[in-house]
Amino acid sequence: MSVDDTRLHAMRHSLAHITAAAVKRLWPKAKFGIGPVIENGYYYDFELDHTLSVEDFPRIEAEMQKIIKESQPFEYFELTINEAIKWAKEENQPYKLELLNDLKRAGTTSIKELDTNELGLSTSENKIDNVSFYKNGDFTDLCRGPHLEHTGQAGAFKLQKISGAYWRGKNTNTQMQRLYGVAFTTAKELKQYLHVVEEAKLRDHRKIGTELGIFMFSDLVGAGLPLWMPAGEQIKHTLTEYMREKEEAQGYKYVSTPVLAHETLYQRSGHTAYYAEDMYSFKDNEGNRFYLKAMSCPHHHMIYERLVKSYRDLPLRLAEPGTIYRNELSGTLTGLIRVRGAITQNDAHIYVTSDQLKAEFLRVLELFKEVYEQVGITDYWYRLSLPDFENKKFAGARDVWEKASQLIREALDEFGAKYVEAEGEAAFYGPKLDVQTRNTLGKEDSIATNQIDVLVPERMGLKYINAKGEEEAPFIIHRAILGSYERFIGFLLEKTAGKLPIWLAPEQIRFITVNQEIETITFTEQIMNEAQDLGLRISVDNANESVGKKIRSAELMKIPYIVVIGEQEIKSKQLNPRIRKDLEVSLNHEALEVDVFLKTVANETKSKTSRSSL
Amino acid sequence: MSVDDTRLHAMRHSLAHITAAAVKRLWPKAKFGIGPVIENGYYYDFELDHTLSVEDFPRIEAEMQKIIKESQPFEYFELTINEAIKWAKEENQPYKLELLNDLKRAGTTSIKELDTNELGLSTSENKIDNVSFYKNGDFTDLCRGPHLEHTGQAGAFKLQKISGAYWRGKNTNTQMQRLYGVAFTTAKELKQYLHVVEEAKLRDHRKIGTELGIFMFSDLVGAGLPLWMPAGEQIKHTLTEYMREKEEAQGYKYVSTPVLAHETLYQRSGHTAYYAEDMYSFKDNEGNRFYLKAMSCPHHHMIYERLVKSYRDLPLRLAEPGTIYRNELSGTLTGLIRVRGAITQNDAHIYVTSDQLKAEFLRVLELFKEVYEQVGITDYWYRLSLPDFENKKFAGARDVWEKASQLIREALDEFGAKYVEAEGEAAFYGPKLDVQTRNTLGKEDSIATNQIDVLVPERMGLKYINAKGEEEAPFIIHRAILGSYERFIGFLLEKTAGKLPIWLAPEQIRFITVNQEIETITFTEQIMNEAQDLGLRISVDNANESVGKKIRSAELMKIPYIVVIGEQEIKSKQLNPRIRKDLEVSLNHEALEVDVFLKTVANETKSKTSRSSL
Repeated sequence: MSVDDTRLHAMRHSLAHITAAAVKRLWPKAKFGIGPVIENGYYYDFELDHTLSVEDFPRIEAEMQKIIKESQPFEYFELTINEAIKWAKEENQPYKLELLNDLKRAGTTSIKELDTNELGLSTSENKIDNVSFYKNGDFTDLCRGPHLEHTGQAGAFKLQKISGAYWRGKNTNTQMQRLYGVAFTTAKELKQYLHVVEEAKLRDHRKIGTELGIFMFSDLVGAGLPLWMPAGEQIKHTLTEYMREKEEAQGYKYVSTPVLAHETLYQRSGHTAYYAEDMYSFKDNEGNRFYLKAMSCPHHHMIYERLVKSYRDLPLRLAEPGTIYRNELSGTLTGLIRVRGAITQNDAHIYVTSDQLKAEFLRVLELFKEVYEQVGITDYWYRLSLPDFENKKFAGARDVWEKASQLIREALDEFGAKYVEAEGEAAFYGPKLDVQTRNTLGKEDSIATNQIDVLVPERMGLKYINAKGEEEAPFIIHRAILGSYERFIGFLLEKTAGKLPIWLAPEQIRFITVNQEIETITFTEQIMNEAQDLGLRISVDNANESVGKKIRSAELMKIPYIVVIGEQEIKSKQLNPRIRKDLEVSLNHEALEVDVFLKTVANETKSKTSRSSL
Repeated sequence: MSVDDTRLHAMRHSLAHITAAAVKRLWPKAKFGIGPVIENGYYYDFELDHTLSVEDFPRIEAEMQKIIKESQPFEYFELTINEAIKWAKEENQPYKLELLNDLKRAGTTSIKELDTNELGLSTSENKIDNVSFYKNGDFTDLCRGPHLEHTGQAGAFKLQKISGAYWRGKNTNTQMQRLYGVAFTTAKELKQYLHVVEEAKLRDHRKIGTELGIFMFSDLVGAGLPLWMPAGEQIKHTLTEYMREKEEAQGYKYVSTPVLAHETLYQRSGHTAYYAEDMYSFKDNEGNRFYLKAMSCPHHHMIYERLVKSYRDLPLRLAEPGTIYRNELSGTLTGLIRVRGAITQNDAHIYVTSDQLKAEFLRVLELFKEVYEQVGITDYWYRLSLPDFENKKFAGARDVWEKASQLIREALDEFGAKYVEAEGEAAFYGPKLDVQTRNTLGKEDSIATNQIDVLVPERMGLKYINAKGEEEAPFIIHRAILGSYERFIGFLLEKTAGKLPIWLAPEQIRFITVNQEIETITFTEQIMNEAQDLGLRISVDNANESVGKKIRSAELMKIPYIVVIGEQEIKSKQLNPRIRKDLEVSLNHEALEVDVFLKTVANETKSKTSRSSL
């Protein structure tokens, strides 16, 4: 960290204490959890006899300002572990007490790196003698620091939001109230950041998704289980069929597998050992335990076994827009980005001999390039996650892992792909290649992933007879070009602010009639028939409303083309399409023969060339 | 029943006793369940200290022949219920004892109509005095009869198969061995029947499905959970996209909903009360009970609520190839015909005002006609299931039921549809219209179903504002033109013996090379590219095998066109397609320009006109 970063970090950390001190002044019985620094700010977890809401923010902020004005020094002191435990008891702070008892017993807390960092203790030391504290005014906290010299040095801040958080992240523990703050050195920086957040809110896919009728949630159906409404299903279907066409051209074969499997399948694949908690499961009344699939790999491996005898049958490329379900805690769910299901993966498994691995990986990279270009994603790079070879944190044979890692690296270099390497972050079964991009907040985010499986083929006994007549285990490339359709569409809605390219727009043209007269209806119907024959997605608004109102309503739906049909159009048999402003299309806003207009839109759909200038 | 039917029934029933008597001679400790007459024969359930297999059939049949030769008279006698109970105890027949005890206590057994018929007792009488028995040789059975005069009058029979069956159909009871026999008056009739059965076996979709690589089962994945292999997925996808095109042309809107729902959804729809046992369910670790959907209706109703405000929004036609799962006992599963999941329904719900119901129902009938014609199903009729109005066996308002029933009847008449009426067989929520056909054994079978929902809209509070500004509940037409894709494809494979029409064939053309020379490969690749551009599903067999062997192997896969590529073809640039024998296509077996051939097949695919003469 640079000096500036260190100072900013200390300032945010001090603001966490100032927030806690303010809360304690307002609700003296508050019990404190932890209060770490995070990106752009900090949070603090409380147990309170009051349910916090944004309406409390002005009060808390005012109290914080008072503390800042008082320029309270941050005083450092140490206590022995037993003194510290005594302090926590006296202060009636059960969460601090729990952490201290864990420290005394185990030399660590189990609440992840965070806490031990917070508390100024190294997890590698098993002997705890002293623990450190910081005190400002009448507020004392178990803490490693560093802090500002005094509260008066705090920069620009704003309380941001409140959410529930289980103590130590376990859903069997108390749910605490997590209060988030953002903080920057200057008021200008804070203002800039808040502006970006506001912009991102306007592009929030949950907002856009609701406005455009893309998807919905229902309390009765349950949290994290989106229902795709007609417009959204159309986008998903267009993308699914698009990927199918691309993949079939590369020799992929589609399969379809059930969402259930008996536990024996996941036992054999090893997933029960690693993933059982993330999967929904139940017993039927004949005593069999079934899992809802959280990945389609083991199902595909069963089809591999049926189809592959010899090296002549390889490569085998099995694809499936498989729906999977994951047992996520309700508190972690976010629109389409984090759902319980269906997660519809753009999934494929490519089974290859070691000789085919590199060439096949290059084909995958080609497919990424082709698809991302057409979908309009330009700002992306790869992140190659390898195992920690030094500390041997991987299962199976080292030479196989190394060979696979080397082949991917070669393929990336040969292809000229932009990538970074990350050691120690591989999947349990092999090296991983994530596709990274930035979300509307400018934050790095994975949108897709590829993995080389060096472990499971052996473990599941998948094999083929090689050219020498010997049994050998294939390599498997797991790849998902678009990741999941849910997450990808969420991402796309935010990136484009809902202004989808013509080929993806659920409604491509809306015809607006100026009246309900018979000639208008007849003329419109002729156009509709022609448009439908061309496979265009169109609709007619012939409601008894003003044309202005109907145009406005079509604009809100971000439809690429809006065409008003009135006397002029009927007489001239020419149309004057209004073109969505962001579109770089071949048409101008000028009168066109019906045919010419419709065929142009059909061509734009087919060629997928229309770009949004966003 | 005619006299002949009565005699045949008695004969089959007597053979059930003869079978039981033979089993008792061979395994004297046998315990007997029930032994009713069924279509084409009979069965008898046993508990034995020996696991029966087809290898035992000759022994049992020989023993039966002995009993027949002995011309044992069937002697009728009665016992009081207490004497009968004493008999069952002495004979050590616990199942008979259980039935008799139930009869004494409740005046009925709970084992469905079957048993009380078997036992010669009416369920409506609560007082049981005497029960009837039949005795032949040393075998006595609780039985109503009628029987033949003596065993020598038995006709032609054959033991057919053995299967497991839970006592009284409950999976918590003992699993017994069910031995099936077929029986006819004459040896000729038996032979004819066995021939039909053999033919049907050859057409069994499980056999064809395996041979053509359509689907597979895996012990690890579990029973009743088919995995669609590439060829099968292709058929399913072609059918799904075909239905989508047809439905979108009729104004259906596609949606996509998760396979899970919180229990509150099914509580509100009323399904938990009627169907909970048929649905898989589990609790997540936050204590919420979820069901795997066994129907998509309630999910669609949630989307209706979001989309519909007024009568102007109706009709709303929501479609989804929704995957559902049903908790079926393992013993009842049959290939694709009866699965646990995925059952991919060709599902749609049409929400209409009462004024729109009849017109919309007519459109559904039109769609049935159009689709069935193109798919090649000609022998089908409708079965209209109405409630038992007299005995008021329906929930909700009678006038609404009557109105809906009347409107369907009018639509059927107006359309000129062939239908029969069945009283007392409606769904719990409204009248039902099944589509009936015959399977390869000539047996009547439902392949699709439609229902009018008169109950659920009200129960779930679905509504719209009518033209008068009042709230009203819509009618809902549930319809599935192809039923489920699984069952439908199973049916189609049997009907066509795997010889699918060109537009549905997973592989339409196979090119077979006579050698691996460079000109052959280049020429073949050119054709392949052209064929792929036309969207044809093709493959090349350039294995180092004899042409004869390669043709034979393509024929076994029932591929419509097989094209050999050798010197002749390369030189003349003309192809000599071999056409699958059953196809009535426009081409003859004559040399054709490559273009002409490929475009003809593409047109046949598009027009869906190619008929199999099967």
